[in-house]
Amino acid sequence: MSKKTTACVVIIGNEILSGRTQDANLAYIGKRCEELGLELRETRMIPDVEETIVSTVNECRAKFSYVFTTGGIGPTHDDITSASIALAFNRKIVRREEAVAAMDNYYEAGKLTEARLKMADVPEDSVLIDNPISAAPGFQLENVFVFAGVPEIMQVMFEGITDRLTGGPAILSADVATNLGESALAEALAKLQDRFEDVSIGSYPFFKKGKLGVNLVMRATDEHRLAELVEQIKLMITSLNGKVLS
Amino acid sequence: MSKKTTACVVIIGNEILSGRTQDANLAYIGKRCEELGLELRETRMIPDVEETIVSTVNECRAKFSYVFTTGGIGPTHDDITSASIALAFNRKIVRREEAVAAMDNYYEAGKLTEARLKMADVPEDSVLIDNPISAAPGFQLENVFVFAGVPEIMQVMFEGITDRLTGGPAILSADVATNLGESALAEALAKLQDRFEDVSIGSYPFFKKGKLGVNLVMRATDEHRLAELVEQIKLMITSLNGKVLS
Repeated sequence: MSKKTTACVVIIGNEILSGRTQDANLAYIGKRCEELGLELRETRMIPDVEETIVSTVNECRAKFSYVFTTGGIGPTHDDITSASIALAFNRKIVRREEAVAAMDNYYEAGKLTEARLKMADVPEDSVLIDNPISAAPGFQLENVFVFAGVPEIMQVMFEGITDRLTGGPAILSADVATNLGESALAEALAKLQDRFEDVSIGSYPFFKKGKLGVNLVMRATDEHRLAELVEQIKLMITSLNGKVLS
Repeated sequence: MSKKTTACVVIIGNEILSGRTQDANLAYIGKRCEELGLELRETRMIPDVEETIVSTVNECRAKFSYVFTTGGIGPTHDDITSASIALAFNRKIVRREEAVAAMDNYYEAGKLTEARLKMADVPEDSVLIDNPISAAPGFQLENVFVFAGVPEIMQVMFEGITDRLTGGPAILSADVATNLGESALAEALAKLQDRFEDVSIGSYPFFKKGKLGVNLVMRATDEHRLAELVEQIKLMITSLNGKVLS
């Protein structure tokens, strides 16, 4: 494949990291990255710990074209993402008047408390990211985009910044499931992968109703090559006396 | 909190990273870490790319007490975890006779193909991790534990190595949900957090049936302090004219 624009997702929050709350944002961002032609290279889940946020953001923004963070920009004591990212960039935190105005417009009179106003505090020189749902903004600083953790809000924020991203051609995918096991497929599959160097083939075993099978996922930017490989994969399965399940 | 034994999860696989397949292993490992008194500090999701696996494993094993990896130890061309971890440790890959014997015992006569035998190849001097479900083992090399990606197999592998882990006291948790928003809670909550330094309080907003609310999650090793804080949290909610939802 040609050189791609790369991306990294940083999911911030003790609750996601502990596994108690299932993250719902990666699936959305991952899908949008494919559509936008961004190669998602890594996802990190980290706790609400300043030192960890600073080092992770600094490492990732140097390594990838874009970094998308989720979580930790609310009004409570454990919402330390904005302050930590300011620290990572060595910037001051400033209260942004546009953000105050948007929140003032959103909340009933008298409800724009100091706790809420904290959400208008972002690192100096950030570009704000609109939040049409609950007003408190996200922000962009260089190649780092800071989104809320609540999926509904994260999604509208993401859609609000797609015109700031420059990707390559969309990454297309297709999948074929079979009742064959990975071992039965391995040799023929490796040969197909060698023949189709411009398509990546992933093999994912599953258990369903007590039976093992494999889901094969193909990714490419050329739809014809992808379609050609899907045909070859189906022929391969049939020739190995397996069934194509989907 | 006192100094803890730390842990890191490395989830290997393009399919999880792309968000198309939802990871199901972090929830299990996260819960078991709490029960075993291991502080889970970070989770990384990375692709099936040798260079990335090598650098991630080397960074994480130097930084955390234990590293748990999932995925990429099957028989197909994209299963490169074992070889990559051997490279990270600068070890040869060797075919382990105990693993061959276990797999020979598991498969019907004539079914132990070369593709399957690849799963008996692990880095030199590894300690094997039993797989009572489908025979092909995981392995441990120093503080790195390499598990399968299929959740059922990952779980039995994890349970097979818990006696190799030395944790601290179990980390207990409790949660309280309320119909109050984060902003209404923020000030009183920060004060409670200051009074209960030995308990961590996380605040997680949610939308449910169009209504906003907050789930508060408390974590501590001392059950009395935890119970005391839960009582204080409920009093705080009531005093702010909110409802305790659970």
